[in-house]
Amino acid sequence: MAAEVRTAEESSDGWLDATRKQGAAEAHEFVTARAAEHFAGRGEGVLAQTALPAFVAGGKFLRPLFAYAGWLCGKPESRAALRASASLELLHCFALAQDDVMDNALLRRGRPALHVQFARWHAEQGWSGSAERFGESAAILFGDLFLVWSEQMLRTSGLDRTTLARGWDAYDLMRSELAIGQLADLVNDARALPSWEALLDILRRKSGNYTVRRPLEFGAALAGCGADVLAGLAEFGSLIGEAFQFRDDLIGTFGHPEVTGKPAGQDLRERKATSVVVLAAEMADRQQGAELAELLELDTIGDDEVLQWRVLISATGARDRLGELIGERREKALAAIDPAIFPRSAAGTLARLAARATGRTR
Amino acid sequence: MAAEVRTAEESSDGWLDATRKQGAAEAHEFVTARAAEHFAGRGEGVLAQTALPAFVAGGKFLRPLFAYAGWLCGKPESRAALRASASLELLHCFALAQDDVMDNALLRRGRPALHVQFARWHAEQGWSGSAERFGESAAILFGDLFLVWSEQMLRTSGLDRTTLARGWDAYDLMRSELAIGQLADLVNDARALPSWEALLDILRRKSGNYTVRRPLEFGAALAGCGADVLAGLAEFGSLIGEAFQFRDDLIGTFGHPEVTGKPAGQDLRERKATSVVVLAAEMADRQQGAELAELLELDTIGDDEVLQWRVLISATGARDRLGELIGERREKALAAIDPAIFPRSAAGTLARLAARATGRTR
Repeated sequence: MAAEVRTAEESSDGWLDATRKQGAAEAHEFVTARAAEHFAGRGEGVLAQTALPAFVAGGKFLRPLFAYAGWLCGKPESRAALRASASLELLHCFALAQDDVMDNALLRRGRPALHVQFARWHAEQGWSGSAERFGESAAILFGDLFLVWSEQMLRTSGLDRTTLARGWDAYDLMRSELAIGQLADLVNDARALPSWEALLDILRRKSGNYTVRRPLEFGAALAGCGADVLAGLAEFGSLIGEAFQFRDDLIGTFGHPEVTGKPAGQDLRERKATSVVVLAAEMADRQQGAELAELLELDTIGDDEVLQWRVLISATGARDRLGELIGERREKALAAIDPAIFPRSAAGTLARLAARATGRTR
Repeated sequence: MAAEVRTAEESSDGWLDATRKQGAAEAHEFVTARAAEHFAGRGEGVLAQTALPAFVAGGKFLRPLFAYAGWLCGKPESRAALRASASLELLHCFALAQDDVMDNALLRRGRPALHVQFARWHAEQGWSGSAERFGESAAILFGDLFLVWSEQMLRTSGLDRTTLARGWDAYDLMRSELAIGQLADLVNDARALPSWEALLDILRRKSGNYTVRRPLEFGAALAGCGADVLAGLAEFGSLIGEAFQFRDDLIGTFGHPEVTGKPAGQDLRERKATSVVVLAAEMADRQQGAELAELLELDTIGDDEVLQWRVLISATGARDRLGELIGERREKALAAIDPAIFPRSAAGTLARLAARATGRTR
């Protein structure tokens, strides 16, 4: 079946959910097999064999879906291409496992973070040494394994060597940018607020690229798409990536714990210089600016301070304005997908994914 | 030039040194280019651009040389194969950068460990937050980059796709074993001493395989060597890998700081259940066993305790016995290289490398 003849139904939400489910099952199966290969019959392996596959299964699976959407811009549906796309979820698991250690985040997807699970396990064994330190080291190493396994899953996806060869540059760029973006995040401290323009520059280099643009480019490169398609996807991907990040920042500030699986106001507690905080600072009047400066200097941020922050940010108008910016970017992104160039069903898939990535609540 | 016609001179120490130098230059050049590509013009990039290439250049380069020796068992000298072999040094840098964080080791190759360098840099910037924590996170992320770059250097080494395809299985196994071996090390605590047999099992799975056997198998797989060569290399590699680890443990216990670039008795201070300690426990008489048990229970291990440990270990005879075991394994390993199967010059290279890996002082 050629990409052009996919019916509208095949880019429906039902199709997207089924594709997501199948790709997630492939990733889960691959990690289960690797964990069994390396950990069967070993003490620390019991937890690894349950925790690692469960970790893979819990995500939104956005990056693989964007990669697969990129593929569908040039080639028909393919089980091997879906498997190659799903390998990006393992790359994401690598990032999450290690980020949670660096940010000392305790919850991930509503469950204890990997390092917390392994710290508890260490404590239960009654071993000497710091359980916390063990948990952190174990999570770093499991992150490393996810990084190795992602590439292994891609290489053994079933795509032939010529097809694979077209994707490596985009894949390598994405992996390097991912580590370098996290490094930039380490030096991103809300007490030294960047300007709005400087922040957009950071976003473009970090998660915006990593979540939307690079996966799209990777999938399209595998499919051998031409320069016009790649240019359209690059523009679409940059805009949706930014909108995704704005949405992520709104959720990290205003999201409900029972929906997000994370503590309320997590980003505020971690003093992240997010788009929400930076925009609030730019939009604040004199009185609000003074209040903001005071909050930024606080040593500890508890529930009361989170509430105070939220009220102040909303009062500056930053919350509403960010919503508008998301809408603007989504509109502009959709306009970058020229119907004369993109297959109709692929365009439909891109539009649906854009809505999912920027309109979500968790 | 076919492998069979390499002259004896070409497996001389001079040839080995020249090969080492050329391979190290390739690795240094690759990392310098990657660091410039990703870090040029960025604040945290100044240090990365000097520290990362310097980190690559400081090593013994054993793993690439074993890999290249494996290659020479089946194919003639090749710049591309040397480059592919040199990619293992980047894999080793990944392991070192992260191990030093997990072990809280402050020195590496006579210089401050990566995480220490980046912690100092953070402190110099006068930033808020923990400089130590920043240094650790940065070293983890630079480790990740080395892991990504190793595979990228291998894939872009210049070997054609058919040749590369023969090496991936061995490469993937090596990478997974590396992370899993470090995980096993985390649960290896001298206060719960394993038996000698259990320790050998750990060694075989950890650094023994990683340092000698897997690199040899990787190089030989790339070269398309037959089953008889691979079997010989597997036996040779296992034995030399163990002997390498015994030597490493002797150095970690008895080495001189000005030679090793590490604090005296580093392994003792870190309470590692090394071959030295385990063998001493097995060889101790009743009085010595009681003294050992007492030392194992100490909360802090300073210079005096290191000296006491060393005297006690020597008195059990474990130090001398370990030297004998190294010699025995080296002899047996050399016997596994059948002159009817292995090219003469490759056999010469293997013998020289075996001597370097097991007879070194640092």
